[in-house]
Amino acid sequence: MFEDAELGHTLSKEDFDKQLPALRERLLQAQTKLLEAKRFPVLLLINGVDGAGKGETVNALHEWLDPRHVQSMAFGATSDEERERPALWRFWRELPPKGKVGIFFGNWYTAPIVRRVLGESRKVELEQSISTIEHFERMLTDEGVLLLKFWFHLSKKSQKKRLEALSRSKRTRWRVTPQDWENASRYDDFRAVSERVLRETSTGSAPWIVVDGSDERYRSMAVARTLLDALERRLAAPPGEHERSQAKPAPVSIRDDKGLNVLRALDMTRKLEKKKYEEKLDALQARLNQLSRNPAFSQRSLICVFEGPDAAGKGGAIRRVTRSLDARQYRVIPVAAPTEEERAQPYLWRFWRHVPRNGRAAIFDRSWYGRVLVERVEGFCRDEDWRRAYAEINDFEEQLAQSGAVLCKFWLHVSEDEQLKRFEDRKNTGFKQYKITDEDWRNREKWPLYEQATCDMIDQCSTEIAPWTVIPANDKHFARVAVLETIVSRLAASIEK
Amino acid sequence: MFEDAELGHTLSKEDFDKQLPALRERLLQAQTKLLEAKRFPVLLLINGVDGAGKGETVNALHEWLDPRHVQSMAFGATSDEERERPALWRFWRELPPKGKVGIFFGNWYTAPIVRRVLGESRKVELEQSISTIEHFERMLTDEGVLLLKFWFHLSKKSQKKRLEALSRSKRTRWRVTPQDWENASRYDDFRAVSERVLRETSTGSAPWIVVDGSDERYRSMAVARTLLDALERRLAAPPGEHERSQAKPAPVSIRDDKGLNVLRALDMTRKLEKKKYEEKLDALQARLNQLSRNPAFSQRSLICVFEGPDAAGKGGAIRRVTRSLDARQYRVIPVAAPTEEERAQPYLWRFWRHVPRNGRAAIFDRSWYGRVLVERVEGFCRDEDWRRAYAEINDFEEQLAQSGAVLCKFWLHVSEDEQLKRFEDRKNTGFKQYKITDEDWRNREKWPLYEQATCDMIDQCSTEIAPWTVIPANDKHFARVAVLETIVSRLAASIEK
Repeated sequence: MFEDAELGHTLSKEDFDKQLPALRERLLQAQTKLLEAKRFPVLLLINGVDGAGKGETVNALHEWLDPRHVQSMAFGATSDEERERPALWRFWRELPPKGKVGIFFGNWYTAPIVRRVLGESRKVELEQSISTIEHFERMLTDEGVLLLKFWFHLSKKSQKKRLEALSRSKRTRWRVTPQDWENASRYDDFRAVSERVLRETSTGSAPWIVVDGSDERYRSMAVARTLLDALERRLAAPPGEHERSQAKPAPVSIRDDKGLNVLRALDMTRKLEKKKYEEKLDALQARLNQLSRNPAFSQRSLICVFEGPDAAGKGGAIRRVTRSLDARQYRVIPVAAPTEEERAQPYLWRFWRHVPRNGRAAIFDRSWYGRVLVERVEGFCRDEDWRRAYAEINDFEEQLAQSGAVLCKFWLHVSEDEQLKRFEDRKNTGFKQYKITDEDWRNREKWPLYEQATCDMIDQCSTEIAPWTVIPANDKHFARVAVLETIVSRLAASIEK
Repeated sequence: MFEDAELGHTLSKEDFDKQLPALRERLLQAQTKLLEAKRFPVLLLINGVDGAGKGETVNALHEWLDPRHVQSMAFGATSDEERERPALWRFWRELPPKGKVGIFFGNWYTAPIVRRVLGESRKVELEQSISTIEHFERMLTDEGVLLLKFWFHLSKKSQKKRLEALSRSKRTRWRVTPQDWENASRYDDFRAVSERVLRETSTGSAPWIVVDGSDERYRSMAVARTLLDALERRLAAPPGEHERSQAKPAPVSIRDDKGLNVLRALDMTRKLEKKKYEEKLDALQARLNQLSRNPAFSQRSLICVFEGPDAAGKGGAIRRVTRSLDARQYRVIPVAAPTEEERAQPYLWRFWRHVPRNGRAAIFDRSWYGRVLVERVEGFCRDEDWRRAYAEINDFEEQLAQSGAVLCKFWLHVSEDEQLKRFEDRKNTGFKQYKITDEDWRNREKWPLYEQATCDMIDQCSTEIAPWTVIPANDKHFARVAVLETIVSRLAASIEK
């Protein structure tokens, strides 16, 4: 992969000066269009060997573009807020919104490569990282991000020459750190590991662009031209026509002859007498409280997701959970229409921003499953968007679980009759009227569609690390106790093991 | 202040049960109106003595309100990201948006009171904290926040009884920490310091509401009724008619006979020959780079603000600064129209979110001064809003400076003639065309108004900790060197002292 980049490409000052004005003009025009259309964000990953001029090239880009709409970000040591969340969280929080250009140094490739070269990780861990990255980048490009991955390369000899040259001049000496020399001494290892990573992560929608870093004019021009070309092509394509996921549609379950499915198989008559309920509730709440104060929980977090038909009793169940927790620990996140800033980002961004730190709980009243439920049924997103969401959600939840989060996902189910009864009841109870809207009545008409979407969702996203707990909730007592029992048992299994 | 709250108010179960349904109905109605109108946010501060039922009362509120639009937040130990920023940053980042209810435990009152009681701070520091709080809260209420400050009180005897009762029951024992007993042993000190703080921070627009915490039903009802009353009254008032700042208008300078002002007094003929410029630029950039790599800078941050008429050369000056910095260190923040999430917050929120960590630089291309410049001149905000902004900005900058930020604020000034020349030039240079819009031409017509606004701004906000540097910028060389000289000298004074 690096052969061409070791040929020592150069660009004469004359040619450079001749090409530059037209290039700048076109870059600015493309950037202005990008900003006006706000159709997609542009994300440049800047990686490669030390001394290959990454910083200088980015500075040149900052100069040639309108710098007000370019944000470069370097990810150094993690903060404590970052360490207590999935590894990708720090990148999610800095993603450029639609219309803007983001440039990431020290991105998600850095740690996996460096750790492997230094022998801090095993081969299988590198493989896992690569797989996580592949999924993440596929999601980004599927969401419309124009992702350009630049690898700045230098041959072993050129790198040595370059670092020496930088060290000689007083003005540039600071750029060469002891770490750079240390890394240079491992050039061959770095090259081997990088080559493998690049090969495995070079995909159709986000290929690596390897740049010969030995000549300043050449490499800046190469990067700028690549950016310009990608940007112009993408802007010229009709909206929605961009390089979409080539992924096959996710398999979606088919209704069987008998109309049997996971919801219909529920025993909706399950109930719990009031006295029994109160006893159990008391004991479970005390137990959950105790678990939440277990010192081991400070290395874990709890994420609960509540989904279900309208009036299934999500709010009531959530309150039974939160009552057992210290108010300092939890947050309920009601999921409504996304804000403008959220709409300018990939779909999952608005959930990533609420991922809790260790020792905390986040309780989602509706969730990222909206994509495969309401958005699918109501046609709020395109077919391919909800179809790919199953895999994206599984990736997301896997990352949450890996970072120590205990995930409990509840589908509280009510029958159509019971829902109707509750709607009528709400209409007649003053302080519950706010809970019922015209939309709720409209949604009822689409019951079979929602049922199908729900079954598909459970089918696709009930995984070992994040299983769905489907609860018959015609009886609120039964449902609340079932919710608490699940949380208690999952939490206990996780922190008392 | 605490006398009434020590009388042992109670509410019988009968009365409580009788009042509750109507209260809940009205609370929900008010909350729905709040959410629909999105005119202002509601912020409840929950403070008081341990064992006075703060958590239980908030739980009750969560139950009586629509919990999806209430966010309770407890501020415990600071994270490293928080420690490297002004003390108020952590509260800014959690402020509820318009239409929502936020409940803050462990808020900005906690540390000043606790530290004073434990003897970790001196009296004068407490006074400073109180003053900071007063200004902060005045800003919040001026911005429309409905701020309700609850102090949960218990007499010494009641507190002891309450803590003992909690400790006796297995289910509530966890609530009483050793710290609570420790605090209880200092009851008198806590009472004295709190009394003083409450007295000094009880203002017309945000008075303290002291609640007798000895009876669960009484205190929950008292808090809920207070909230309801405040909410209903505020919703009934015509928009904009809420309790606005009683502050007198900020003094604004008057033009003198000779039309003399700080801008006209500038020597606009200042210039620097190209050769001299290049020499100086080189030396200054090397020096700035050296300073940015000084280990002492890791305890500081750099915040630069660039303001000036259109085409004054802000972008070019910024690039001369950023070129001396490592791309990993800085971020340019272009200030454009606020987003939806930003519009739902107090004015300064969108700048607080960009406050850099230590060791980093934030460069604002236009800034919070927009309020007293473009918003004032174009009438984008009301008269009282920009008039109070001077004091709010000074508070903001004081907090930045206190947290270790080095602030450099530049007004790059060009004459009307020079601006016209540059506009024409831009029109004729392909890759600069994007820089000039109809708005730029319109703004030119309001030159005298902008001049007045600028002079007032410098008058009001050029402070010792954050002085304005006004630079004649008809000659770009001169201006860029002056910018770098200022940053270098301020940074050196701060980190080499």
